[in-house]
Amino acid sequence: MGRIMATNITWHNGEISRKDRLHVLGQSGVTLWLTGLSGSGKSTIAVALEKKLFDLGRICYRLDGDNIRHGLNSDLGFNEADRSENVRRVAEVSALMADSGLIVASSFISPFIKDRDKVREIHTRDGVPFIEIFIDCPIETLKKRDPKGLYKKAMAGEIKNFTGISQPYEVPHSPDMHLDTSKVNLEECVSLIINFLKQNSYF
Amino acid sequence: MGRIMATNITWHNGEISRKDRLHVLGQSGVTLWLTGLSGSGKSTIAVALEKKLFDLGRICYRLDGDNIRHGLNSDLGFNEADRSENVRRVAEVSALMADSGLIVASSFISPFIKDRDKVREIHTRDGVPFIEIFIDCPIETLKKRDPKGLYKKAMAGEIKNFTGISQPYEVPHSPDMHLDTSKVNLEECVSLIINFLKQNSYF
Repeated sequence: MGRIMATNITWHNGEISRKDRLHVLGQSGVTLWLTGLSGSGKSTIAVALEKKLFDLGRICYRLDGDNIRHGLNSDLGFNEADRSENVRRVAEVSALMADSGLIVASSFISPFIKDRDKVREIHTRDGVPFIEIFIDCPIETLKKRDPKGLYKKAMAGEIKNFTGISQPYEVPHSPDMHLDTSKVNLEECVSLIINFLKQNSYF
Repeated sequence: MGRIMATNITWHNGEISRKDRLHVLGQSGVTLWLTGLSGSGKSTIAVALEKKLFDLGRICYRLDGDNIRHGLNSDLGFNEADRSENVRRVAEVSALMADSGLIVASSFISPFIKDRDKVREIHTRDGVPFIEIFIDCPIETLKKRDPKGLYKKAMAGEIKNFTGISQPYEVPHSPDMHLDTSKVNLEECVSLIINFLKQNSYF
């Protein structure tokens, strides 16, 4: 990817700045990128976070590895190239949505450091705030939890390219937040993220 | 496209409904799909509409054929297949953004009826309101205006696959709105769209 095939194109600047949007919405757009193994709690945290933000009068929107593959990325599989393209497209969508003023909670396994670095680069390119949150959990705990039976299937070879079993997960070296869901419960995780957003003046 | 390659995926329902979002934002999310020839005024109308909505305390976000090709669709060109994939991806993004509660103004030439029908289908699938607006203008007028010199280049064969010159534009048969920018000025176009949104209780 990354070829620029579109020529004869120009950028249409609008008249509404991000500061204007902050004024109307009472919040500053930002992407919260939740990365971690399947079952670590990314989507569960995002759902609870969206609810908590709503209770505070704030608008959050969730983008989800599972959900987005039903629509935008329904043409992509799980090999390394498709995973990279999956992450690239969602990064672009996250940046657009955060630019609009939304607090975007994007939950994607996104196992490769180079892809997550690309996500950050896309946000930096667009001048859109980006927060990487590592949703951590020991794989032995995940194998025990396994509510959907996916780890069992992956270990039996019934699911190919399964992160943590047949494909690597590259641990973030310096995420903006690091939450270990084997130690910190759901409510505490949400509170920590809310506090982080408040301390950094996102609302 | 359209193959479902993603398996072992489930849908994560959130706890926040579109009605909840309406309550916080004071507006109902909707996609306004502006289709028409290059230079017909789609992006100009979208910029003015966004400004007018902002003055009314409403939040609009523009997606633009030119702008989106710098990011999400920078890997796509202008042949028929790439145009279709361009429109498909933007339709998915529009539906997500409108689902979040935004008034989305998507300006895309989108020359083929089958692609625009697909855009509507994607919104219907997701239960997201969709309004097709045909930004009409006689091609002879556009060739005279031609502020970027694109029609001149296209007629000289310097730009391939240029809609209206070397690639067809299929006129919408029953758009929700039809604005002829050779007869209706910018301010009036914006007023007509605003009135349409009010009359249909989008805010």
